[in-house]
Amino acid sequence: MTVTEAERDAMSRALALAANGPRGLNPQVGAVILSPSGEILSEGWHHGAGTPHAEVDALSKLAPGAAQGATAIVTLEPCNHTGRTGPCAQALIDAGVGRVVYALDDPGEKSGGGAERMRAAGVDVQSGEQQDAARALIGDWLAVQRLGRPHVTVKWAQSLDGRAAASDGTSQWITGPAARADVHARRAASDAIVVGTGTVLADDPSLTARDGDALYPSQPVPVVIGSRETPADAAVRRHPHAPLFYDGDLAGVLEDLRERGVQRVFVEGGPTLASAFLAQGFADEILAYLAPVLLGGDRLALTDIGVGTIADARRLTIDEWLPLGTDLLAIAHPTQEESD
Amino acid sequence: MTVTEAERDAMSRALALAANGPRGLNPQVGAVILSPSGEILSEGWHHGAGTPHAEVDALSKLAPGAAQGATAIVTLEPCNHTGRTGPCAQALIDAGVGRVVYALDDPGEKSGGGAERMRAAGVDVQSGEQQDAARALIGDWLAVQRLGRPHVTVKWAQSLDGRAAASDGTSQWITGPAARADVHARRAASDAIVVGTGTVLADDPSLTARDGDALYPSQPVPVVIGSRETPADAAVRRHPHAPLFYDGDLAGVLEDLRERGVQRVFVEGGPTLASAFLAQGFADEILAYLAPVLLGGDRLALTDIGVGTIADARRLTIDEWLPLGTDLLAIAHPTQEESD
Repeated sequence: MTVTEAERDAMSRALALAANGPRGLNPQVGAVILSPSGEILSEGWHHGAGTPHAEVDALSKLAPGAAQGATAIVTLEPCNHTGRTGPCAQALIDAGVGRVVYALDDPGEKSGGGAERMRAAGVDVQSGEQQDAARALIGDWLAVQRLGRPHVTVKWAQSLDGRAAASDGTSQWITGPAARADVHARRAASDAIVVGTGTVLADDPSLTARDGDALYPSQPVPVVIGSRETPADAAVRRHPHAPLFYDGDLAGVLEDLRERGVQRVFVEGGPTLASAFLAQGFADEILAYLAPVLLGGDRLALTDIGVGTIADARRLTIDEWLPLGTDLLAIAHPTQEESD
Repeated sequence: MTVTEAERDAMSRALALAANGPRGLNPQVGAVILSPSGEILSEGWHHGAGTPHAEVDALSKLAPGAAQGATAIVTLEPCNHTGRTGPCAQALIDAGVGRVVYALDDPGEKSGGGAERMRAAGVDVQSGEQQDAARALIGDWLAVQRLGRPHVTVKWAQSLDGRAAASDGTSQWITGPAARADVHARRAASDAIVVGTGTVLADDPSLTARDGDALYPSQPVPVVIGSRETPADAAVRRHPHAPLFYDGDLAGVLEDLRERGVQRVFVEGGPTLASAFLAQGFADEILAYLAPVLLGGDRLALTDIGVGTIADARRLTIDEWLPLGTDLLAIAHPTQEESD
């Protein structure tokens, strides 16, 4: 089976519509309803958790019976699950839609199976159209579904010999301006930025993502983990987003962040917190900024990560050794046979 | 002034002759004596400390008076110093040589000034011919003259986070085969390989330079530093060269090695010894082999290098970030304003 040119154009349109929706707990999805002759009858997209799914949004704009024999173009497989909204697969069947073209399979255990239900009802279903573009749009949401928690990047800066600071605690600046600019750009691409109370008390970071002196349009939610109190005048309290405070286990923190719609978490330290994320297997991506400097001493960028013997070493796969000015960024992820 | 084609050819020949001499306390030098019409009258090279210098070696092959009006081609400025041999500049003057072409200036405080002495005696002196090739041949010897001690490379292998081993001391293999092969090739290019007694007792290394299972033709002299006894059955005692043992300060060790003709020292650790070389400013080149693995814990590749605050950090200039298999070799030297 093939996809018509009108259907292909409609999928491109549906992807553009999807991007209108908010990034959060639910995926960004777009839908276009085409007449049997290929004309656009209506459009819709998902406006966020608790609102109608994209297909239903599009169908809702049509008069009863108007979708009879129509083709629905959707960027994600219509769901088969009754949550805050009814199953979209059934809504399309009920509307009399004759054919459905979608980009990506729904990875959800509960929500998947929509294609099967529709086929059983006699709907002609086609999948995979422009799936790469769809995956680029909702890749972070898909990662959350796969991981069962937000995607976690653990970042630290270190001297070549693995120190975060000199013996007296001074560390500004181990890395240079290019490395710091890179960090800010990556902060801006994250939903939450996480530090421990030790870092808040020692460095009083603003936890904003800045492009030079200006704030990036998108700011991660600041998250502070630890038992110590964050001072009333701490810079993080002046962040564009109200900070979240946790004093619990990391799994619980990640679960709560997921429920708040956080897809990407950027862990910025300090050493104790970064080591805890690594020790507990919660690091999907590792960013180690290496400065061409030696410090020695006991201020380590990582402390104990639960490795007792060399066979248990946390093997990494390096995605890139990226020079940044005179610094070097190691972009890595846990090697699969070790992390699974 | 220019150099004739015959003189240029003679300098190439002199450089080839120089390479016949031994690498050691004295530089490798070659000399060719040309007749006024450009024919080779005699050749010579320096056979090592205590033997005649190259020019005198070449002159000695001529009948008395045969060098009258001749041109001497020498790869290093004829010396002006009476040591175990008389000054070569005077020997050339005495032989009646009319012109001298040499490649490199003599960097020695005592031995330099030969060109001046010869010019004062009416000899036509030309310098700089094929100096790059000459420098390539005796660059290590020149470094010894400049540093006042052998050139020191400090090498270590570490996890990305700066550990030399897991908590229980296990470390084989942090780095992969490409990195290990690179180490052996660099050992073979060194005159001495230095370890602490701690490394000897813990790892029992052979300290040979191996190309696969075979020994490289050139083997560095093994050097063991520390107060503990090296066992009678230690692998290092079966090295092709008899090991040298020291229990003194590093400056004294380097002075003794220099006097033995060692030009390049390769310090292989462990962490205490590497840190001592760094702390005392005796590291001219740094080779840090980084493995894509995280270990955490307290087995650090470097310990205390005498840095108390960030302003005193040992800044490095990276010559190359060299990927070796999945590992990365940082080739660096101390940044000049910090090390001087």
